[in-house]
Amino acid sequence: MSASNSAARVGVWLIGARGSVATTTVAGCAAVAAGLHPPTGMVTETPPFAASGLPSLASLVFGGHDVLDCPLPKRAEQLAAAGVLPHGLPAAVAAELAAADAEIRPGGPVAGDTRGPDEVISAFARDIQDFAGRHGLDRTVVVNVSTTEPAPTGTSLPPSSLYAAAALRAGCAYVNFTPSTGLHHPELADAVAASGLPYAGRDGKTGQTLLRAVLGPMFAQRALAVRAWSGTNLLGGGDGAALADPAAAAAKNAGKERVLADTLGTTPQGVVHIDDVPALGDWKTAWDHVAFDGFLGTRMILQTLWQGCDSALAAPLVIDLARLALRAQEAGFRGPLGELGFYFKDPVGDSPAALGEQYAALLRFAGRLRDGTAGAGAEAGGAAAPEQPAAREAGC
Amino acid sequence: MSASNSAARVGVWLIGARGSVATTTVAGCAAVAAGLHPPTGMVTETPPFAASGLPSLASLVFGGHDVLDCPLPKRAEQLAAAGVLPHGLPAAVAAELAAADAEIRPGGPVAGDTRGPDEVISAFARDIQDFAGRHGLDRTVVVNVSTTEPAPTGTSLPPSSLYAAAALRAGCAYVNFTPSTGLHHPELADAVAASGLPYAGRDGKTGQTLLRAVLGPMFAQRALAVRAWSGTNLLGGGDGAALADPAAAAAKNAGKERVLADTLGTTPQGVVHIDDVPALGDWKTAWDHVAFDGFLGTRMILQTLWQGCDSALAAPLVIDLARLALRAQEAGFRGPLGELGFYFKDPVGDSPAALGEQYAALLRFAGRLRDGTAGAGAEAGGAAAPEQPAAREAGC
Amino acid sequence: MSASNSAARVGVWLIGARGSVATTTVAGCAAVAAGLHPPTGMVTETPPFAASGLPSLASLVFGGHDVLDCPLPKRAEQLAAAGVLPHGLPAAVAAELAAADAEIRPGGPVAGDTRGPDEVISAFARDIQDFAGRHGLDRTVVVNVSTTEPAPTGTSLPPSSLYAAAALRAGCAYVNFTPSTGLHHPELADAVAASGLPYAGRDGKTGQTLLRAVLGPMFAQRALAVRAWSGTNLLGGGDGAALADPAAAAAKNAGKERVLADTLGTTPQGVVHIDDVPALGDWKTAWDHVAFDGFLGTRMILQTLWQGCDSALAAPLVIDLARLALRAQEAGFRGPLGELGFYFKDPVGDSPAALGEQYAALLRFAGRLRDGTAGAGAEAGGAAAPEQPAAREAGC
Amino acid sequence: MSASNSAARVGVWLIGARGSVATTTVAGCAAVAAGLHPPTGMVTETPPFAASGLPSLASLVFGGHDVLDCPLPKRAEQLAAAGVLPHGLPAAVAAELAAADAEIRPGGPVAGDTRGPDEVISAFARDIQDFAGRHGLDRTVVVNVSTTEPAPTGTSLPPSSLYAAAALRAGCAYVNFTPSTGLHHPELADAVAASGLPYAGRDGKTGQTLLRAVLGPMFAQRALAVRAWSGTNLLGGGDGAALADPAAAAAKNAGKERVLADTLGTTPQGVVHIDDVPALGDWKTAWDHVAFDGFLGTRMILQTLWQGCDSALAAPLVIDLARLALRAQEAGFRGPLGELGFYFKDPVGDSPAALGEQYAALLRFAGRLRDGTAGAGAEAGGAAAPEQPAAREAGC
Repeated sequence: MSASNSAARVGVWLIGARGSVATTTVAGCAAVAAGLHPPTGMVTETPPFAASGLPSLASLVFGGHDVLDCPLPKRAEQLAAAGVLPHGLPAAVAAELAAADAEIRPGGPVAGDTRGPDEVISAFARDIQDFAGRHGLDRTVVVNVSTTEPAPTGTSLPPSSLYAAAALRAGCAYVNFTPSTGLHHPELADAVAASGLPYAGRDGKTGQTLLRAVLGPMFAQRALAVRAWSGTNLLGGGDGAALADPAAAAAKNAGKERVLADTLGTTPQGVVHIDDVPALGDWKTAWDHVAFDGFLGTRMILQTLWQGCDSALAAPLVIDLARLALRAQEAGFRGPLGELGFYFKDPVGDSPAALGEQYAALLRFAGRLRDGTAGAGAEAGGAAAPEQPAAREAGC
Repeated sequence: MSASNSAARVGVWLIGARGSVATTTVAGCAAVAAGLHPPTGMVTETPPFAASGLPSLASLVFGGHDVLDCPLPKRAEQLAAAGVLPHGLPAAVAAELAAADAEIRPGGPVAGDTRGPDEVISAFARDIQDFAGRHGLDRTVVVNVSTTEPAPTGTSLPPSSLYAAAALRAGCAYVNFTPSTGLHHPELADAVAASGLPYAGRDGKTGQTLLRAVLGPMFAQRALAVRAWSGTNLLGGGDGAALADPAAAAAKNAGKERVLADTLGTTPQGVVHIDDVPALGDWKTAWDHVAFDGFLGTRMILQTLWQGCDSALAAPLVIDLARLALRAQEAGFRGPLGELGFYFKDPVGDSPAALGEQYAALLRFAGRLRDGTAGAGAEAGGAAAPEQPAAREAGC
Repeated sequence: MSASNSAARVGVWLIGARGSVATTTVAGCAAVAAGLHPPTGMVTETPPFAASGLPSLASLVFGGHDVLDCPLPKRAEQLAAAGVLPHGLPAAVAAELAAADAEIRPGGPVAGDTRGPDEVISAFARDIQDFAGRHGLDRTVVVNVSTTEPAPTGTSLPPSSLYAAAALRAGCAYVNFTPSTGLHHPELADAVAASGLPYAGRDGKTGQTLLRAVLGPMFAQRALAVRAWSGTNLLGGGDGAALADPAAAAAKNAGKERVLADTLGTTPQGVVHIDDVPALGDWKTAWDHVAFDGFLGTRMILQTLWQGCDSALAAPLVIDLARLALRAQEAGFRGPLGELGFYFKDPVGDSPAALGEQYAALLRFAGRLRDGTAGAGAEAGGAAAPEQPAAREAGC
Repeated sequence: MSASNSAARVGVWLIGARGSVATTTVAGCAAVAAGLHPPTGMVTETPPFAASGLPSLASLVFGGHDVLDCPLPKRAEQLAAAGVLPHGLPAAVAAELAAADAEIRPGGPVAGDTRGPDEVISAFARDIQDFAGRHGLDRTVVVNVSTTEPAPTGTSLPPSSLYAAAALRAGCAYVNFTPSTGLHHPELADAVAASGLPYAGRDGKTGQTLLRAVLGPMFAQRALAVRAWSGTNLLGGGDGAALADPAAAAAKNAGKERVLADTLGTTPQGVVHIDDVPALGDWKTAWDHVAFDGFLGTRMILQTLWQGCDSALAAPLVIDLARLALRAQEAGFRGPLGELGFYFKDPVGDSPAALGEQYAALLRFAGRLRDGTAGAGAEAGGAAAPEQPAAREAGC
């Protein structure tokens, strides 16, 4: 029997399941699966991934947690009115939106919740397992696409870590598309190691940092001396408001600056601003200003202006990551998936920093997925190694 | 005995030896060799090239052809006044400028010259051989850094091809840093093949196309659909005026568009303008506007603004190329050096189109130079193969 | 009796009545009149014009000529799909679109038309007069919003002039929102003078030139020395294709450069490009690069990037101009309306070049309209003077 | 006898006399007076001011206060090395730089100074009066060009107010080119009123705000709805470091936002950042992003990129203001000079907000200066009225 069974159904459990990214993910997956749109922006639909045994788009079943209660079909209509989704799309995929909406469970903890962390984690894990059971899913991946939370100040687990712990408990692969803490909490270190589950993150690389990941290497390869790299991001939507909180922005900016330091080999002057501009809605503008020295100290400048729709940039990557993580778990990969650094500002595991090298690593990963688990145990090193699946996976 | 003898002296013969690029090359090489400036922008001074046996900066002896007669020291002063060279540099390297100036011979053919092409080529070749003889040079590379010439309309050899033929006749490696014809003329094909000399080109990748070579792959790797890529270049100096000639611009733009077609896999809408703006002098501004589709057809835009000094961008690459070509000839490489595609808009031989892959190819080339000629004959394929040096090299 | 009778109905006859601008004009006028949208972009709806006796939006009746036959309601749906009109608007103003569609007559002359110019003009004039008669209109203004035509090469009247002559023959005020010839043809000079009709033009100032009309004066007032002003426009839609024709672009660029020469007092270096980029549809991007000298010759640069929807920028100005010209004719103004230079790249009559001064002139004009015809004969000078209406107006 | 005696000498006392702006002012005034450079950027050298009786450039004698002790000739050499001043200029005006340097007195109060405010003010005033006496100056203007100080938190006078009080005490006109408090302190209100001295300020309008003062009116006049106006400034030099202090930046940003509120009639979303980027030195880059709605709510965007040299932008305005204030005092103007709002972000007195209207007001002021004091008493209203000079002026 084949390592991949395209008829089997698998789950994608979204943390922040009623947000713009999640709504675009659910609606877009349905639209592409139905042939209504080409798979623009989905790397896993390009030829190098054709034989990797990824679950088909049609096999993905969506559910998730959220603290909001706006129904997905209505959210989709709002996004269409704002030009984020094409007009007519919410109606065309109304059934799929409604199906996903029925699988969204209340998130938390909300104010007044008196349960301890362990109780909350168990309740979340039960939600995921019930979902898997109801649909007879072979496995489920948990993907955090919720609004960025402030960096935690104490020792208690922030919400993103409660959800991540629930993923572990339910035996699910985990992907953190945000800069929130998630699995990166000292209290979860042992559980992560013991679980043997594959995981990926953090913080999807969708705009300014994507550019930095190709421009930084360009300067380095050409031996040009970058003196200052400054940037400003303007965005509305929920993320704009959340990142107007300096504590939340700090988490995000750390990832942006890490890309420069890693590709340039030095940390140039300059800071990054993230401004909440509600009038821009889900549209994000990023200006970058790079002051660099050329031969004999000649001063030169590169500026970039990126105008994109955040949800439309993120959603195809979320689908990519869900498929890759699901297949990685199936193929027996364990631990941090550094090969998915292509997708992240601040990759887990071992990952090069230049986008071109990250892409090459991703293609090699596609090859390993294609070759399946046989003999994979021989591949050691920093990268995730396919091993025997953890017993707990059966439940998810 | 070592494959490289740093005490030996080698020649760099510049076509267009009194231009901005050539002047910056001669002055900058002297300044860096003397420790007055760090080698910013010179890739061959980075660690991966340390053991490749490249000729040292101090071992390079400059000469060349030009139809102008403004002395190099004066040209350098003009460039310093325009902010292209640092103030004080012309005085600090006055001796080296004067030495190079003494080795510049009249170019041509100028109006009224009644000599046939073969006579001109022979005279140019003799100039180069005399230069090599006077200085006891082990070998000399000919580098075309003259103003872009119009695309040839007839069958006769344009000036850039006469110079290139002279390089062949003098047994010199040849580098074409411009989009002019040079060796790419049907009448020279046999001579090129028979010479066994290594050569590289065409058209140095210094600004807008450098950016395109990293941004094009980014869009492709992310499966984003580029719909239109438009650009405008503003520049003064000699090149601005030359490229205001549509015939000359056509040659340049072909290279720019090839980069997009090769990295994107399609040819997007949009054209490139090159405007002569004398007020900008040697400073070049390039605006690029990229309209692309994201997931579900969402329209997004990237714009880049590049402000650089053309001579300061080109000169360190010219020194890089001269050193690499000289060492390649020494190590027995023959024919098109596709591994130097990193430097060119329109590379000869086999070269990937993405800058990251070109850089990887360059590093592999650095390794082959380090390993020298031994066993290199086993390496076949499209790339230049180190072979026995052609007999004719002795003269140059 | 009041100078303005808001119950009376007046006509707006659009040349190019099925184009994007015309469709947006008709749909938008209906939407604003119905209170569905605020009058953003309509200067005549701001307080200074409240007492000028302008015809109300509800009193405007639309018709026109076009060589195309796509029904207005369908054009509106296309524009909504392209994001130019709000979704839902075509349905909300379906009745008004259908009513205007019923009043569009075939334009021309088309290939194979054997009629002489006078016949064509008479037929066009009859169309306009029939329209006025059918609706019992007090008067009608003819507004050219058709695609820019190439600059005429011979002595025969180009189509835009045939339409303009028809306006004269029908006794209508005339507004040329394009750079096409219109009334500016030697053969029409006598008819224009004899008609005593008010007219305005040429070439609506909607983007790059609007910016230049405020930035040029800024540099002049601050005594900064502009050395080069370069620009590139990217646009799709019909205008992009038309202006890709160098002859048509020449007409447009003359207006753009006139603004600089008039406000700066000199003509800086630099050219303007207009590129047809079909992928951009009705969206226009304009990049301007201004190189200027400050104190002691310090080189500085201003760049602007304007991203707008051409039809949405033009349509409210078309409505403004129609209202102002209709009221001007009613109030007895004759000849070139230089006071409307605020709206045009290349104003007829006497007009300052700086936008601020043009706005002040427009406000004075609003005052004169408010004060009506009484005593207007006393106001002489370069500006249009209210006089006795020409007898022929009665018919239109 | 003429109202203006060009042979007479007048003083310009600079607070922050060793800074970049002051050094450029002294060197540039000498260079233009000597005919070495055209008066680019000096509005008072344009024709409308020819007959206003302004003191000639050659009649200006410079001195000032500073807490630093780097000699002016050395500061000028530093600025030339950084490309702010032309090479060769420091040498060409060495005598004038040395002369001004000899007239710079220690500023303060520095740490450990035990004098009370009144003592400090008296000492400063004595410095100014001694300067005037030594040179037999008819009058002296005090101009604050020092680094922006943090907004004062207590009731005690900040340094800028001590200097301003000294100007009053010495009977000098006062110009505040910075956003610091200066005369705008409650404790100085009575003294300001009693002095009858003319004064102008605050915060020179040299870049981003200059643009806003022409672009804001453009949007308003065209009835376009600005939804968000965001900006980022990058600058090095002393001002970059000072403004990295949020308290100092707050003062500056208030002025920038006032321009928008005053010209747009509403306060759009968006903030302004000022980043200290030492690598940029005295060069300032300002990016502005304006999101606005057009007709029917269509979303459009304007972006501007301004790259200028702060000192070169400020210095000619400082000379303008010194000449205008000196002549205003001579002509008997008293109190806030609202007519100089053209120069400031946050003008004193009555001033329109649009640059075009401010320029018109400035030209009217030039006319009033030309007409001198006679009959000026008849001109009442918000603007400064020429009156009898205050008795105290004799001393300065």
